Amino acid sequence: MTFHRLTLVALSLTAAMALPCQSADLDLSLNALPISSDTLWFGHTTPDTDTTVSAIAAAEFYGGQARSTGKLNKETQFVLDKLNVKTPPLARNLENAKVALVDFNQTTQLMKGVDQNNIQAVIDHHALRDNPISLSAPISIVIKPWGSAATIIADDALDHGKTISKTMAGLLLAGILSDTLNLKSVTTTQRDIELVKTLSAKANINADEFAQGMFKAKSDLSDVSAYDIVVGDYKNYTVNGQDIGFGVAEVLDSSELLGRVDELRNAMAKARKNQKREQIFFAIVDMQKKTAFVLTNSDKEAKTASKAYGVKQNNQGLFVLEDTLSRKRQMMPAIKKALAD
Amino acid sequence: MTFHRLTLVALSLTAAMALPCQSADLDLSLNALPISSDTLWFGHTTPDTDTTVSAIAAAEFYGGQARSTGKLNKETQFVLDKLNVKTPPLARNLENAKVALVDFNQTTQLMKGVDQNNIQAVIDHHALRDNPISLSAPISIVIKPWGSAATIIADDALDHGKTISKTMAGLLLAGILSDTLNLKSVTTTQRDIELVKTLSAKANINADEFAQGMFKAKSDLSDVSAYDIVVGDYKNYTVNGQDIGFGVAEVLDSSELLGRVDELRNAMAKARKNQKREQIFFAIVDMQKKTAFVLTNSDKEAKTASKAYGVKQNNQGLFVLEDTLSRKRQMMPAIKKALAD
Repeated sequence: MTFHRLTLVALSLTAAMALPCQSADLDLSLNALPISSDTLWFGHTTPDTDTTVSAIAAAEFYGGQARSTGKLNKETQFVLDKLNVKTPPLARNLENAKVALVDFNQTTQLMKGVDQNNIQAVIDHHALRDNPISLSAPISIVIKPWGSAATIIADDALDHGKTISKTMAGLLLAGILSDTLNLKSVTTTQRDIELVKTLSAKANINADEFAQGMFKAKSDLSDVSAYDIVVGDYKNYTVNGQDIGFGVAEVLDSSELLGRVDELRNAMAKARKNQKREQIFFAIVDMQKKTAFVLTNSDKEAKTASKAYGVKQNNQGLFVLEDTLSRKRQMMPAIKKALAD
Repeated sequence: MTFHRLTLVALSLTAAMALPCQSADLDLSLNALPISSDTLWFGHTTPDTDTTVSAIAAAEFYGGQARSTGKLNKETQFVLDKLNVKTPPLARNLENAKVALVDFNQTTQLMKGVDQNNIQAVIDHHALRDNPISLSAPISIVIKPWGSAATIIADDALDHGKTISKTMAGLLLAGILSDTLNLKSVTTTQRDIELVKTLSAKANINADEFAQGMFKAKSDLSDVSAYDIVVGDYKNYTVNGQDIGFGVAEVLDSSELLGRVDELRNAMAKARKNQKREQIFFAIVDMQKKTAFVLTNSDKEAKTASKAYGVKQNNQGLFVLEDTLSRKRQMMPAIKKALAD
């Protein structure tokens, strides 16, 4: 093992000296050490498309195996079905497992049972804050301020001249399209735009049509319970010592969910209790109208949202936020600021 | 500015498509966005050689300007003098400055006055733990488990085919040699060994002789006050809510400092007070004997050190640790464990 690694490093170095461009196989950029074959790559709890495809792609490019962290949502299932990719096995028995993380760095989003000292690597595009993983020794951590974790992995693979299969290009494309809402979210960067072009060409997929299919699949919530909608794309935060939750449902047409507001509010109360939260928020995000409708279900939550967004509740009791699509960049920062003041 | 960036990204992508190997100038690997020319690169408070040369090299390769975080120690001054490099200006007026960090990620080691939301990038080789920087938005963060921050910067520069001048190679070489104690520390990795070969060839410098010169300069503490020795290579930590300090003096021959133990103990008491610490430790590290002599100056500290190291104090009241050179990997982890139990 040590010999193997040594040889690889030496070869790579020789190659780098003679032809500075061919660092191909051993990815020194991302991984200081090769990832062992039994390392499990996975993303945050309540998996979404970016977290799922990034785990699969990371295992492909860096070694190890992909795992999922729960039942996939309809958008992710649509992507895997379309690309004929099997759902990664569920992550389990994590107590002694070597793990590597994609798409998050917060302990609040880490699968239960993981020993943080068994984390081998982190690839993420979120801010370092609140409750990041804490380790006793240094590991490889790469965080970049791009639209998705898939963008970082795709960039690194291209940067190191790796072979990206048609399927892999489709998966990475899906990750970027999902997290940037087809490059419409404020989190979108120039690198996301460029890589959507590159990857859609490699995958021979029309990005706009693919995105529409994904968002349509995600929008079909007719047979999904209100509770599953609230926790379907949901994250926990700790802000100034307060435990906060924020769920979002991104839909192409908000009218269906706006007809289920009472049901969703009851589901929020249940989620608040189950997740042991002081305050919980839920947003119906209309991707066509670029508008978010934020639901609250307590006076405390309504007060926080009112302070955060500076708008009054409409006649349905909703906070209507125009030009708002991103929980990470828009909706949560305002909540954090309101609670910090 | 936006146009400039866009052009650069587009050019780089075009180059990457046509010739996947030539990502040369715009370092997409490390920086998602180019660093602005007014960004100040610096390392941890109480600068050492790795922190200083890494700040200079990062400014060279990624843009921005290098700053120092205090008076340089004799080893670092020896390196700059030998390579004919000017001391970077002292970091000051940091309230509104854009900054980028090398060689640390802990807020306890951050220059005062910095707004953490003005941090643009982090390059480090330490564990993420205790009190990492906390940001409201994602930035570029690269952490790798290598022997020095200089190793990461040198690797990235080689990986992207950048031109490394003779002077720059010498600086980066010094960073690796200093932090790995000429590749003898347990923190040394295969990549450090390889890069010492590469960089010493590029710099046309004999690494062993250079290291001996550096360590001799560092060892010359005859005209340095005991207080300056204690805080000369010193770090603050927070362990289980307790404020801890740990200074080290790495010397080629420990006999001189072992003759100043009483004086050093008094200086520790002063440093404990000035740094507002509950416990403070200081180690004389004999690099030839690979032995650390840990000094304490309170019953509480002696109790902690005794528990941490499992050895009794010698007749000078010192904890003598054989095969021990590294504060990061050996001396501090044991203290942390003792305080956590």
